[in-house]
Amino acid sequence: MGNAKIRLFVDQPIGAGQAVALNEAQANYLFAVMRLGVGASILVFDGQNGEWRAEVAEAGKRKGVLICVEQTARLRMPPDLWLLFAPIKKARTDFIVEKATELGAARVMPVQTRFTNADRVKVDKLRLHAIEAAEQCGGTFVPQVDDVMPLAKVLADWPANRRILWCNEHLAGVAEALPKGGDTGPWAVLIGPEGGFSQEEQDRLAAMPQVVQASLGPRILRADTAAVAALVLWQAHLGDWVGDQG
Amino acid sequence: MGNAKIRLFVDQPIGAGQAVALNEAQANYLFAVMRLGVGASILVFDGQNGEWRAEVAEAGKRKGVLICVEQTARLRMPPDLWLLFAPIKKARTDFIVEKATELGAARVMPVQTRFTNADRVKVDKLRLHAIEAAEQCGGTFVPQVDDVMPLAKVLADWPANRRILWCNEHLAGVAEALPKGGDTGPWAVLIGPEGGFSQEEQDRLAAMPQVVQASLGPRILRADTAAVAALVLWQAHLGDWVGDQG
Repeated sequence: MGNAKIRLFVDQPIGAGQAVALNEAQANYLFAVMRLGVGASILVFDGQNGEWRAEVAEAGKRKGVLICVEQTARLRMPPDLWLLFAPIKKARTDFIVEKATELGAARVMPVQTRFTNADRVKVDKLRLHAIEAAEQCGGTFVPQVDDVMPLAKVLADWPANRRILWCNEHLAGVAEALPKGGDTGPWAVLIGPEGGFSQEEQDRLAAMPQVVQASLGPRILRADTAAVAALVLWQAHLGDWVGDQG
Repeated sequence: MGNAKIRLFVDQPIGAGQAVALNEAQANYLFAVMRLGVGASILVFDGQNGEWRAEVAEAGKRKGVLICVEQTARLRMPPDLWLLFAPIKKARTDFIVEKATELGAARVMPVQTRFTNADRVKVDKLRLHAIEAAEQCGGTFVPQVDDVMPLAKVLADWPANRRILWCNEHLAGVAEALPKGGDTGPWAVLIGPEGGFSQEEQDRLAAMPQVVQASLGPRILRADTAAVAALVLWQAHLGDWVGDQG
């Protein structure tokens, strides 16, 4: 831990002098676990107004109040990048959401494909994972995590100007497939289920002008690895990892 | 699952007609869990002689014998890339080894840094994770997983011709820092502990001519995310993910 500051996401707009009411879990964490008292400083962010230093004004067993004092970081939006993925085993699905947040995706969309069993996906839990990851990685933005939607419906309503990086096998590498730097704009990364896409889904995707297909190397990657790899390569080529911004 | 074939790593050299004695865990998996019987086919690899189709010749409760029939894939070595990382929480350390195997690292070296607590690292378990990942990802090679070594000793004996990609913050992106394609040769990726490197370690690294420093973007990444991101970027720029090989 060392001098690691406590960072807390708060679900209300923050600003100078703004009072923030803590819920039971937050109060328990700050006052019981971390043993903070009145006057202690932590960092808070709401996903919209950057990061603020806030001081504990009231510390109770099940509640408490923070007062925002000064802005410590401006809001840093990630690039306009969505992640579409077919939910897999719980731990790996949690992992995908955590990594998507760390790596700078703006929106996470679990999709139901022909070969996906998404019955047990708990989107509320996924949202908590995104918040925790943002608290951990110093982010000031928490990606939106959508409810599970059928892939067919998502593609039927797909915006004409949003490209899709579809990570498929036996193709040119992502580095070659992506347009060269500068030309960003809205994008999405699409990761299929471990069982792969159905023929119908593959035909549908291949027919979309927005789709760019690329390979993630000669080895077969698990879906969670593929999601991380594709986000990393997109960020490094078109996103905010590009050197002069990194 | 569908038509997913069973792939098993066997810890002995394989080849045409070679008999492979199964250990108790393997026998239990094949015959009790997967319910295979004599004559059933599976895929085996030994990390040296590619992948072979083998048939069950004897199926017992605690043992069994396979006979290698035909080679189904040649040995595919990963690039000469090592991963040095400071072990972190167990689950994330397991994850790093799994991902390093999937992403094609040749050797995994857990290192003890000033701010690393590596007391509880079970290298035998990490080796099992590497094997399981190779079985899963269709690999024919299992990276060597070294015992934990002090970083200072590893660097003291560091080969003059092996470069190190040190993923540091606030620097040029990896894409800019790495030499352009073609120029590969031996490399290593170095990921620091969550607490960061000590000043002494940083000075030591910065003084090494083999070291190339690069950034992994504007957000703070967990050590496990950083390991995956650095391996992906190296593979995409200098490794076997480059388009014409991908």
